Amino acid sequence: MKSSPVRDLLALTQRPEVISFAGGLPAPELFDVDGWRDAFAKAAEDRRNLQYATTEGNPVLRGVLAERMTRRGLPTADSDLLVTTGSQQALTLVTTALLEPGDVVAVEEPTYLAALQCFQLAGARVVPVASDEHGMVPSALAEVLERDRPTLVYVVATFANPSGRTLPASRRREIAALAEQHDVWVVEDDPYGELRYRGEPVPQLATYGDKVLHLGSLSKIGAPGLRLGWLRAPRSLMPAAVIAKQAADLHTSTIDQAAAAAYLTGVDLDRHVAGLCAAYRERRDTMIAALPDTVPAGTVWSDPDGGMFVWLRLLGPVDTADLLRNALDHNVAFVPGAPFFATTPDTATMRLSFTTNPPEEIVEGMRRLAAAFTSPSAAGGR
Amino acid sequence: MKSSPVRDLLALTQRPEVISFAGGLPAPELFDVDGWRDAFAKAAEDRRNLQYATTEGNPVLRGVLAERMTRRGLPTADSDLLVTTGSQQALTLVTTALLEPGDVVAVEEPTYLAALQCFQLAGARVVPVASDEHGMVPSALAEVLERDRPTLVYVVATFANPSGRTLPASRRREIAALAEQHDVWVVEDDPYGELRYRGEPVPQLATYGDKVLHLGSLSKIGAPGLRLGWLRAPRSLMPAAVIAKQAADLHTSTIDQAAAAAYLTGVDLDRHVAGLCAAYRERRDTMIAALPDTVPAGTVWSDPDGGMFVWLRLLGPVDTADLLRNALDHNVAFVPGAPFFATTPDTATMRLSFTTNPPEEIVEGMRRLAAAFTSPSAAGGR
Repeated sequence: MKSSPVRDLLALTQRPEVISFAGGLPAPELFDVDGWRDAFAKAAEDRRNLQYATTEGNPVLRGVLAERMTRRGLPTADSDLLVTTGSQQALTLVTTALLEPGDVVAVEEPTYLAALQCFQLAGARVVPVASDEHGMVPSALAEVLERDRPTLVYVVATFANPSGRTLPASRRREIAALAEQHDVWVVEDDPYGELRYRGEPVPQLATYGDKVLHLGSLSKIGAPGLRLGWLRAPRSLMPAAVIAKQAADLHTSTIDQAAAAAYLTGVDLDRHVAGLCAAYRERRDTMIAALPDTVPAGTVWSDPDGGMFVWLRLLGPVDTADLLRNALDHNVAFVPGAPFFATTPDTATMRLSFTTNPPEEIVEGMRRLAAAFTSPSAAGGR
Repeated sequence: MKSSPVRDLLALTQRPEVISFAGGLPAPELFDVDGWRDAFAKAAEDRRNLQYATTEGNPVLRGVLAERMTRRGLPTADSDLLVTTGSQQALTLVTTALLEPGDVVAVEEPTYLAALQCFQLAGARVVPVASDEHGMVPSALAEVLERDRPTLVYVVATFANPSGRTLPASRRREIAALAEQHDVWVVEDDPYGELRYRGEPVPQLATYGDKVLHLGSLSKIGAPGLRLGWLRAPRSLMPAAVIAKQAADLHTSTIDQAAAAAYLTGVDLDRHVAGLCAAYRERRDTMIAALPDTVPAGTVWSDPDGGMFVWLRLLGPVDTADLLRNALDHNVAFVPGAPFFATTPDTATMRLSFTTNPPEEIVEGMRRLAAAFTSPSAAGGR
């Protein structure tokens, strides 16, 4: 088992002098600290919020989440939802409930590396599906479904991590139909869907069919420190997911759930998200504008409609892990792209997060990155 | 996969008219609500407590926990600890890190049913080790180690769930020595160790050898709603546990950890625990005193030195699951004993928790239980 490079990097990037484009962190200065303080004050008044609770989750929280999902276009009942300790846990529960060692999981390429770790820990074989600038290619998925008989297909359909890509509606329809045809589960991991800075929303993949499990999260639109996510699953799967959740941690923090319920019923989250989008749009634009003067000639990059990440590919044989050492010498950080690949890593790729830092820090960080790109690499060239 | 009967019962026992001896719930009226409210108010002031955090856990919290464990007789460094989302998660992480499907886990009998579920979900084969009123019998463990070659031995060494038993120091030494001799990991699950109402503390099993992993929890001495536990593991195992934790939920709630750090540095927890012990001692005594007039002739029961549970065995062929239906008709609840057995259930057993209800409620609940025992069972006998 290998540790996550992203999380190992957190140690280095926490040096205060480093401008980090590495971790997928929301902007801390945009957290609604007042709102959360009030919500926790309210939750902490009730001693029942210090006690054990039911595995499925706080009823008020499930209600407001279901109502919000329904309003955003995915009809959802309270009983369709299992509150999880972040959507990362939702993914692990699905894995526990559905995968046996040796089972196959199909993923877009590149994909979220902590999902790859989760599948590998479960003893699954991960098979990449050819993907282009619009995400997973349905015809390529059809081939994998025929050839490798996966148990699960995993996609971040909207503003993918790390690529920033969004699957168009037509492909969503095709993928959902393929899932029904082959009786295979699709997991739609959707932590970024509300962070749109351009264009019109695309209906969630789960709206196109009953074989799509949907993972949601408050980490990017609320606060990640509470570790609050959810699984939306059909009735047939919920009992197995609940049992997996019992074994995992009995239930998610009672007081965090109560605080989130108080927060979501008390504030206008749509307005807060609109504020996040305005700020993140400017940050994306700042980073994209700086890129031509930052990266070597021949580099290509994504210009995402939303989410948190710009994905780059440098020209020629190069390992961005080497560049990272150089970058850290210049007090700037990013994530090398290789770990996001299931099988054959493309070492010339890298991921930049534009949400964590305000625009002026992005400008300075890109200046440092440009210096790291042009300075000679460390002795020995490794 | 079967759901946990204990947790399924929570739904029924939450009817306000039911006096429940079923769930292993601490007394809510003894929660330090003021202390936790202050701690959360402090934690919610700092926006960093809304952000993602490192997997290993809040450094201040790890420090105070390590200091407390060291003071209680188990020398522990901060880096020996991984903060987990309840000690239930610590058990799942150990399982993920150490067990392959088909591996054998040796357990005392009866044992904690959510541990059994956890091992079964991992595809392990669970082998019971003969146990008596002092817990696991070392010579029986030696036989199982020779015959079944387990990867893991699981014990609740102090005030076990459900039996209330405590493993004497001499057996701890023998079990730790057997673990080293056979190079097998022992998991010491210790949520109840501080809740002693009689006699002198016994050193933790982990003090007797390096092959003992120790699981701790704030659920019984602080508040279970925060889902805060920890794994104490040797350096060799920590990287695998951290990777399993990343896949499980990235990290435990940042704000709950910060609140716990504030709480533990701000209050006298020893004094709070002494208050809990005084109250729980009276509750245990109240229940034990009521038992002769409650249960049928020939019933035997434990009289635990600490913890939360009295364990009963009724005379003759009887299924306490049938009695439970009768008991619920009388608005009182307990847990049938069968699910606590790994292989051959003893259906004449049952578990009563004495911590959840104040003494006057215990008296009334035992009166109802006596009525349930003596009234005819429902039509058809089931």
